[in-house]
Amino acid sequence: MSRFLNIVPVAEAVAIVIRFSPEPAMEKVPVESAAGRILAADITADTDIPGFDRSVVDGYAVRAADTAGAGDAIPALLHCTGRITMGRQDEKAVVGPASCAYIPTGGVLPAGADAVVMVEYTEDESDTVLVKKAVSHGENVLLHDEDFKKGEIVFFAGRQITPQDAGVLAACGCAMVTVAKKPIVGIISTGNELVPVTVVPGPGQVRDANASMLAAYLTEYGCIPRLYGIIADEREAFESVLTRALPECDVILLSGGSSKDDRDMTAAVIAAMGKVLVHGIAIAPGKPTIIGRIAEKPVFGLPGHPASAFVVLVAIVRPLLDRMLGISQPLQRTERATIAVNIPSQRGREEYVRVSLKNGVATPLFGKSGLLNTLIRSNGLIRIPAGAEGLEQGSVVEVILW
Amino acid sequence: MSRFLNIVPVAEAVAIVIRFSPEPAMEKVPVESAAGRILAADITADTDIPGFDRSVVDGYAVRAADTAGAGDAIPALLHCTGRITMGRQDEKAVVGPASCAYIPTGGVLPAGADAVVMVEYTEDESDTVLVKKAVSHGENVLLHDEDFKKGEIVFFAGRQITPQDAGVLAACGCAMVTVAKKPIVGIISTGNELVPVTVVPGPGQVRDANASMLAAYLTEYGCIPRLYGIIADEREAFESVLTRALPECDVILLSGGSSKDDRDMTAAVIAAMGKVLVHGIAIAPGKPTIIGRIAEKPVFGLPGHPASAFVVLVAIVRPLLDRMLGISQPLQRTERATIAVNIPSQRGREEYVRVSLKNGVATPLFGKSGLLNTLIRSNGLIRIPAGAEGLEQGSVVEVILW
Repeated sequence: MSRFLNIVPVAEAVAIVIRFSPEPAMEKVPVESAAGRILAADITADTDIPGFDRSVVDGYAVRAADTAGAGDAIPALLHCTGRITMGRQDEKAVVGPASCAYIPTGGVLPAGADAVVMVEYTEDESDTVLVKKAVSHGENVLLHDEDFKKGEIVFFAGRQITPQDAGVLAACGCAMVTVAKKPIVGIISTGNELVPVTVVPGPGQVRDANASMLAAYLTEYGCIPRLYGIIADEREAFESVLTRALPECDVILLSGGSSKDDRDMTAAVIAAMGKVLVHGIAIAPGKPTIIGRIAEKPVFGLPGHPASAFVVLVAIVRPLLDRMLGISQPLQRTERATIAVNIPSQRGREEYVRVSLKNGVATPLFGKSGLLNTLIRSNGLIRIPAGAEGLEQGSVVEVILW
Repeated sequence: MSRFLNIVPVAEAVAIVIRFSPEPAMEKVPVESAAGRILAADITADTDIPGFDRSVVDGYAVRAADTAGAGDAIPALLHCTGRITMGRQDEKAVVGPASCAYIPTGGVLPAGADAVVMVEYTEDESDTVLVKKAVSHGENVLLHDEDFKKGEIVFFAGRQITPQDAGVLAACGCAMVTVAKKPIVGIISTGNELVPVTVVPGPGQVRDANASMLAAYLTEYGCIPRLYGIIADEREAFESVLTRALPECDVILLSGGSSKDDRDMTAAVIAAMGKVLVHGIAIAPGKPTIIGRIAEKPVFGLPGHPASAFVVLVAIVRPLLDRMLGISQPLQRTERATIAVNIPSQRGREEYVRVSLKNGVATPLFGKSGLLNTLIRSNGLIRIPAGAEGLEQGSVVEVILW
C-alpha cells in the first residue's frame, strides 16, 4: 500500500457513497412515538377537517344579517332557541330570522346560521339575547373543509415528523404511521492504543471515546447503533468481527486507531473481503478516511481522532444515512453568521473549521487537530470550499450546527 | 364559576408553575445512550487527557533544534533509532542529538524528543532520515494535559448532552452518566366531541389530535408520556382517572375539550381534589388555560384546540419541564429574523404568532385560530409582549423555533 493516499474530493466521495446506498426499509409505528421519524409515504386526509362547520368561540350562532348595525347603544335583539350540544349534529337545531342558539367552541353550526357572535359581546335576558356587535358572514366559523380537504395530500414522504405533525397525523386518522426503518449501524473500534471507557488508560493508551460518540450521534439521527467493542489490531480478529457484524448491520463504521498501520490494516481487510472504493478524501480534518463495500454493505474506516471522525460523520456518512432514511430535505441545521477573523485554508481540500457562535458571529476555534475540547466548545462547522484560499473576516457564511 | 376568567400575565403563570416544580430526580444511563439527556452532576476529568505527550501526525520524533534550517535543498540528516509502538510507553525509546524515531499518530513521544516532523517532509534511506522541513519545539505534539487536566471540570450539571459530549464523557471515564430522570407526564383527554384516532368522526365529532401531539412533544423533550385515553365529560369518570393517574405521574396534562362547559368541569374537579391556582392566562392563543395542583403534583388544563394547546405547552408547561429536568439553559432554539409585514396585537395579553421563516424573514401565518394547518406550515412563534400594540414591518425579532 502506498505511503501517500489517492485523495478524492468530498463531492466525489459523497457521490460514491450515495451510489450504493441501500434502499430505505419501512415499518409502522404508533403516531404518538413517531416524532423525529421520516415519513415513508404521502399522507392524505381521510375526511374533511374539521368535517363540519364549527364555531371557534363560545357564543351565539346567528344569521350575520340580523346583527347588521348592532352596537353597545343599539344591540340587536334575538330570540334564543336553545343550546347546541357538543359532539353531535342536532338536526332540530335551526336558526331562523331574528333568532340565535348558544354554541360552545367546537360546536356544530346549526342550519340557518352563518356566523357566531362571541359571548363577550352579548347579554342574555331570559329567552332574548342582546347582541352588541355586528358579525360578518362566516365570522368565528371554521368551514367543514377549511383546514384540510378529504383526499388532499397533507404531508409528503421524506418529511421528518415533528410533534405538531403527529397531531395532524392523528387528526387524519393515522394511528399507525409508515416510516423509514432505523438503519442498524455497526461500530467496530480498532487500534492497539484503545482501552474501554471503564479502564484507566496506562501510558500510551487512550479510552475509546469514538464508539460512544458515534453511537450517541447515530441514535439522535434516527439509527440503531450496535457496538462490537475494541478489536485487537490483528487481521484474523478483524475479519472475524466483520464476518459477524455484516449480516447484523446495514452499515459498518470502523472507528480506527490513529496510526497509519491501523488504517492500512483496515484497508487491507476491506480489500480482502470486498472492495476499497476510496482511501483518502480531500477533507480536513479527516483525510485518511476509507470507504469500502463488503457484501453490498457500506463500510467506512473513520479517522481515529474523535474530532476528525465527527467531521467525516457529518460530511460523508450523513448523506448516506439521509438516503437510507429517505429524507427529502437534509436535516442539517444551518445558521448564517459573520466570520470574526480571517481564516486561511489550503487550496485543494475542503476544510471544515469548528466555530463557536454568538450573536451571529462565528469565531473559529483554532488549535491542534487532536483536541477534544474544541469539539465541545464549538457550536458547529463552517466549510471552506476546496478552491478557496480561506475566508475573510466579516464575510457571511452558513454555519452547519452540530 | 364566573363566565369571565380572572386572567394572569404569562410571567406570573410561569412563576407560579416554577414555584411548585418537583425537584429533578436522577438516574444513571450508559454514555452511548446519554445524548439529549441532562447532566445531573458536574463531570471532572479523572486523568490528564490525552495522558501523555502524543504525536498528532505520522512522522519522526526529533529534537526540534536538530531540524533548524532544514529544507528541500539542505535536509537535516538524522539517525533513525527505531519505531515507536502504539499503545504503550517504550522506556528504551530515547531520541538523542541528531537522531530520530518513527512515530505513528497517537504514539507516545519518546524521551529526548520535543517535536514531530510529518512523514510527508521526510525521506528515509536505510537508517538515515532526511528531514526537509524545520519544526519548532512542541510542533505536532499534544501535551499530556493539553486537552483536559486531571480534576478539571469538563461539564457542568444542567447541560444537555450532545453526541460530541458523549465522546468526551467517554474519554473522562464516564461509562455510566448521572442524568435527570425523565419526568412521567400523564395525558388525559376530555371533551364529548372527541373520538379516538382510529375512529372516523361522525357529525360534530373530532379526532383526539392533542394526545398524540402532546405525547410526541414530551418524548422529544425528554419526558415519558403516559396516555389515559379519552374520558367522558362526567365528573365521576374524570375524578376516577385522575385518582389513578396521579400516583403514576409527575405531572398531569388535561387535554381539554374546546367547550367552556368542559373547561369549567375540569376546573371544578381540580378544585375539588386540590387547588386551582390559575384559570385564564393573558396569552393568545391559549387564554382558557388552567393551572392547578393536586397532591403536590402540577396539573394543567390545556385549551382544546391543538394549535392553542401547543403554544401553552411551549410557553407555560416547558419552563416546568426545564426545572424538573434541571436544565441550566433553556433548550429553546431561537433565530433572529426580520418581520415581513406589520403585526397588530391587542395590548394587555402576550400574543404568540405562528410564523414561517425563510432566509431570515418571518412571515406571520394569520388565519382562524382553529386551523391545524398553520401549525405545520409554520417554523416557530414570535412573541408580542403584553404591553405592545404590535410589531412593525422590518423590525428584528427572535423566532422561537418549534
